[in-house]
Formats: sequence, structure tokens, C-alpha cells
Amino acid sequence: MRITNLKLQNYRNINDLDYQPGPGLNIITGQNGQGKTNLLESIFVLAAGYSFRAGNYQNLLAYDKNSFSVKIDYSWQERQFTSQLDYKSGKAKFFINNKNASHRSEDTLKVVLFTPDDLYIVKGTPAKRRSFVDFVLCQISPDYRYDLDNYSKTLKKRNLLLKQEQTNSRTFGIINQIFIENAVSVIIKRINFINLLAEIVNNIYKEIDTMSAEIKIKYAVSFPIDSAKISLDILYQALEQSINNNRKQEKLRRTSLSGPHIDDINIYHNDKLARFFSSQGQQRTIALSMKLAEMYTFKKIKGFYPIFLLDEVLSELDNEKQRKLLEQLEKEDFQSFLTSVYIKPLTGNTVIIENGCLRRD
Amino acid sequence: MRITNLKLQNYRNINDLDYQPGPGLNIITGQNGQGKTNLLESIFVLAAGYSFRAGNYQNLLAYDKNSFSVKIDYSWQERQFTSQLDYKSGKAKFFINNKNASHRSEDTLKVVLFTPDDLYIVKGTPAKRRSFVDFVLCQISPDYRYDLDNYSKTLKKRNLLLKQEQTNSRTFGIINQIFIENAVSVIIKRINFINLLAEIVNNIYKEIDTMSAEIKIKYAVSFPIDSAKISLDILYQALEQSINNNRKQEKLRRTSLSGPHIDDINIYHNDKLARFFSSQGQQRTIALSMKLAEMYTFKKIKGFYPIFLLDEVLSELDNEKQRKLLEQLEKEDFQSFLTSVYIKPLTGNTVIIENGCLRRD
Repeated sequence: MRITNLKLQNYRNINDLDYQPGPGLNIITGQNGQGKTNLLESIFVLAAGYSFRAGNYQNLLAYDKNSFSVKIDYSWQERQFTSQLDYKSGKAKFFINNKNASHRSEDTLKVVLFTPDDLYIVKGTPAKRRSFVDFVLCQISPDYRYDLDNYSKTLKKRNLLLKQEQTNSRTFGIINQIFIENAVSVIIKRINFINLLAEIVNNIYKEIDTMSAEIKIKYAVSFPIDSAKISLDILYQALEQSINNNRKQEKLRRTSLSGPHIDDINIYHNDKLARFFSSQGQQRTIALSMKLAEMYTFKKIKGFYPIFLLDEVLSELDNEKQRKLLEQLEKEDFQSFLTSVYIKPLTGNTVIIENGCLRRD
Repeated sequence: MRITNLKLQNYRNINDLDYQPGPGLNIITGQNGQGKTNLLESIFVLAAGYSFRAGNYQNLLAYDKNSFSVKIDYSWQERQFTSQLDYKSGKAKFFINNKNASHRSEDTLKVVLFTPDDLYIVKGTPAKRRSFVDFVLCQISPDYRYDLDNYSKTLKKRNLLLKQEQTNSRTFGIINQIFIENAVSVIIKRINFINLLAEIVNNIYKEIDTMSAEIKIKYAVSFPIDSAKISLDILYQALEQSINNNRKQEKLRRTSLSGPHIDDINIYHNDKLARFFSSQGQQRTIALSMKLAEMYTFKKIKGFYPIFLLDEVLSELDNEKQRKLLEQLEKEDFQSFLTSVYIKPLTGNTVIIENGCLRRD
């Protein structure tokens, strides 16, 4: 996919903006609070139907206005699309080629977003890492979305029965079996995905960080497995065993103590856990590599690249890493948009944003 | 307080380091993963007795070593102190002037720390803002620590009774009254502190951001108050009223629905909520201003300045704000340590760290 034109009206601090980006790397630079992230956000909002910052569309309105509009022309597989989001007096309308459309439509603009908060995929809690994996897998695999939905529903039922102290009921026995089946379906897909991702991430990291560090990513199951090999059967038996062993604990704490809702993804930098032992700059580089890997995985499975949006990704990276990253983005086959407060070192197609207005230097 | 010498052995990636910082602003620069934050962290660990990153001392050991040591010479009110933390084979010993000491001692090195995560004081959940206020207030006011402890204990008891559906018991009536008394003691101290802080923060922000924005900080009570004036009596009546009105809701949800554990601190940038409407760079500048205000408040109440530690604070700030901040720190009467991946624009007393070793350029 490639954006050829972006038109914004009354969007946050941007009153009226027309932007024709280039096919490769596009850099949006400017001082703090001038509208860099607003511009990036508007592309995300058109693609996803929600903002990664403000809670609702109302917050995206320019001061004193009651309507805003985002209009993007893009090409995809040799076809042209125009997509538009109009928000007026509390109501939103979304069009593709002048027809009412849904953000879930096949033809909707697709993006992968990197924000400063994505650092917490590496640095944050296990929940952050699970959401990253779930988000990517749901995007590329409807099967996974189905399995995950089933698992979440069964987990809820199982926890309710534990709360109601009905673990001796016949219902609990049945729910328990379904729970294990759903759990292993989710886990096996996550493991396969992580194995695929791990190799790509390690290769990307080496491109950006020339200190020749090894990044390893491993899925960490929340229950013991007595086998080096992993299969559906082995997972099933191990989870069943773990649930039997934890019976007392689960009764006491009234909640499910093993399963994919507790699993983690361990990220190692030279064989040490990155969330404890890597510097902030290294953690950001790993998070970025994981997002780039998301781009490649998307392409591998869907056959085309989405748009890559990178918000303030250069922060805390040393000069060498900044240069390597920009070089890498310049030679990629996808279109990317990168915001940065630093004017230098800038290459590629650069625009400056000042008080919501664009200019080229 | 002023650090005159820092000596590290086997601390993370630093094998052996001797550092004589200057009295004012000290800048530690270097590429990612060279040890900038490790150096800063070692000062914090000596002062606080724990790390703001790794869970325990074990993680601070250099690779393949079983002991580390942090030794700091500092002057305070014309007296000289030497403080040392020795960790060996799982045991930690802490000395001030060669005598066993506690990190809570009066003579212990005092620091105020700014990390990249402090952005979330502005951007994050209400819990982050409450912890910031509680942390600072507990440091400067033993009375507040006492009130907050009492409130936490009473809240726990009250919630337990709500869970056990004992809201009609005599005990609940008594606990309820104590709960309200403890709550208003906490709230009134927080409000007074926020009013003091708000003015300082606004002044500092204007020094760093020359766009002449107004920063307002207001304590947001979690229950309605029918009065422009705030006093202990007014708060007491308002909270009592709110609890009466919420009786059904609290029974249903079995938890306390109003009180300082739910209050928030609203931060406004030009009359708009900063957590929704400010850019990442503006949010970081506000968070930084709040930390600087913490320094001034500490001085006002305790009569002396702690050491100011700033980890990667320049990230996402535009050139003008970086310059203003460094200028500000240079002319302050306290000693500060600032890490940065950017070699320029650097002023003051700068050292470069490379693979755990210091050099001056």
C-alpha cells in the first residue's frame, strides 16, 4: 500500500493541510507541540477507526470547531482508493471510494504503528507482550482470533465456577476439558509465531546495532513441560497435569492459575533478560525490531506491505543506530512515516511542521 | 548535599571506576548500552537502598562476579561523609563513616530521580500521579506518612467489611467514621501541597518552554463538593454525603467508591488536560518541571538540596528546550547528574562512558 495524498481539516492543531508523501521513507520534523504526532495519528485513525492517544473522536476536533475530516488517497495492487473519515456534531462517517464502509473492510488502509510506549513490549509487564503477540496474530490469522475468543470465554466461565466454589460440579469437569483444548490451540499458534518472529527480529537487530548482539525470543509457558519437543498432545498433557497439581491452590485463590492468559514471552539480549539487563536505548531498538518484524510477517502472510508509522522512534538511540535505522527504512519496499524532533541527521523526503502547517526546507 | 567522589567495583558493566564530579551540572554521555544509566543508578542505590530498575541486588552484579561495591564521598552542611554499600555472596552491608547504618538515617545521601518513565506522571493513570504526590509528601512530612498509613489500613478494613456484606454491623459504622476522618486528613495535606507545587511548576515550565504556555495543576477530589472554599469540615461533610449517596453502589460493588485512593491530580496545559492534549515532548517537559519543583519543595521544607539525577531527560525535547534546561541546571545551587546519548549540545562538566570506563573529552 502507498499513500499518495493526505488532506486534513480541523484536525487537532491542523486547520488545513495537503500532503503528498514520497513512496519510501517520509520524515516529519519540527519542534515540540507543532503537530508531528497529530499528522501521524490522523493516518492511524483513518486506518483503524480509533486514536492511539485520545479516547474518542471528540478529542480530535480543532479548538472551537465541531467537525473534522481526514481524507487519504492510496494505491494498492495497482488500484486507486480514496478513503475519508468525516466527523461532525458527534457523528462519524467513513467512506471508501465515496461508499459507506467499515474499518474492518479488506480495502481499508492498513498500518503498523510504533509509538514511544511500544518500548514497554520489552520493558513492561507480561500482559504487554501477550497483547503485542495477540494483536499481530489476530490481524493476520482469523483462525487465531477465533481460538483466542473461545479461550477468553471459557476462561471467564471457569473463573466464575471457581469463584462460586463449584469445582466438584459436572459442569466444571466439562468446562475444564474445553478450557485445556482452547488453551493449547492458542499456545501452539503463539509458539509457532514467536519462532518465526524470533529469527526475523535477530536479523533486523543486527542491522541496526552493529555491536553484534544476539536477540533471542522464547515463548514461556506458565506450566512445566517435561519434554524438549512441543506438540498439541504434549501441551495438553502438561496443562492437564499442572491443573491437577494446582487444584488446591486454584480453589483457595478462586482463579485459573495456568494457561495462555499467564504465559510470557522472554526476550534475551546476549542471553540476559532484556527487560532487566538492557539499557533503555537497547530496549527501544529491540521493540523497533519487533515492529519491523511485524511488517515482514504481514507481507509474508498477506502478500503486501502495510504503511509503517514511526512516532519519535529516534529518541535515546545513539547516532550510529539512528543512521542505520534511517538507511534501513530508505531501502525498504514499503512506505514509512517517521516523526522526529531532531532536524539532523535527516535523509529522505523531509517536511517540517510548524503550528500545524507543513513546509519543505 | 554534594558528591565529591564516586567509586564503583563490579557494578553491572562497570568493573572499576573512580569519578570526581563537579559541584553543579555533571553530564554523562555515551552510546547505548555503555553504562550511563548504570552509573546514575549506583548513586540512587546507595541513597535509597534499592534499584529503580532491577528487582534485587543480585541483578546489579557484574558478569561472573559475586560481589559489588558502591562508595560515595559527599559533603553536607560543612561535614564530610563516606557511605558504602557492599554486596557479597547474597548479603548486603551499608555503612556511613565506617559504621553500620540504615538507608532511613538522617545522614544518608538524599536524591531526587527523574527517569524516562516519569513521563507517566503526566501521561499515565491517576495511580501514577497519586504515587508521585504520596512519595514526595512522605519524604518531607512524617505527619503525612502517618496519616496515609492510617488511611490505607482503614480502607482495607472497610473494604473487607463490604466484601463480607457487614455494612449493617456496628463495626462498620465505627470504621466508616474513622475512614472519613483519615481520608480528609490525607486530602487536605495533598491539596495544600499541590497548590504549593502548582505555582512552582508553572514558573519552571515557562523557563524551559518559551512558548508562554500556562501549566495549572489541580487536585481532583473523587466526590462532589458544594463549595468553592475547602476546609476540613467542608471535606468531611462532602465525603460523608457522598458515602450516603453511594450506599447502594458500594454494597453492590463491595468496595469503597470515594476517597483519596480514587482522587486524581489534573494537569492542564493552556487549560486543556495535558494527558490527552499535550505532545510527548510537552508532557516530558511538564514531568521534568514537577521533578524540579520536588527539588525546590525539599529545600524549602528541609533546608537543603538533595542531589538531582536525570536519566535520558533530553529525549524528545527540541533543541531550544534542551538548551534552556541545561542552562537552568547550570545556574542552580544544587548538584545534578544528567545522562544523555547526544554528545551535543553539551555544556558543563562532561564525561564520556564507554564499555563501563570513564574518559573526559
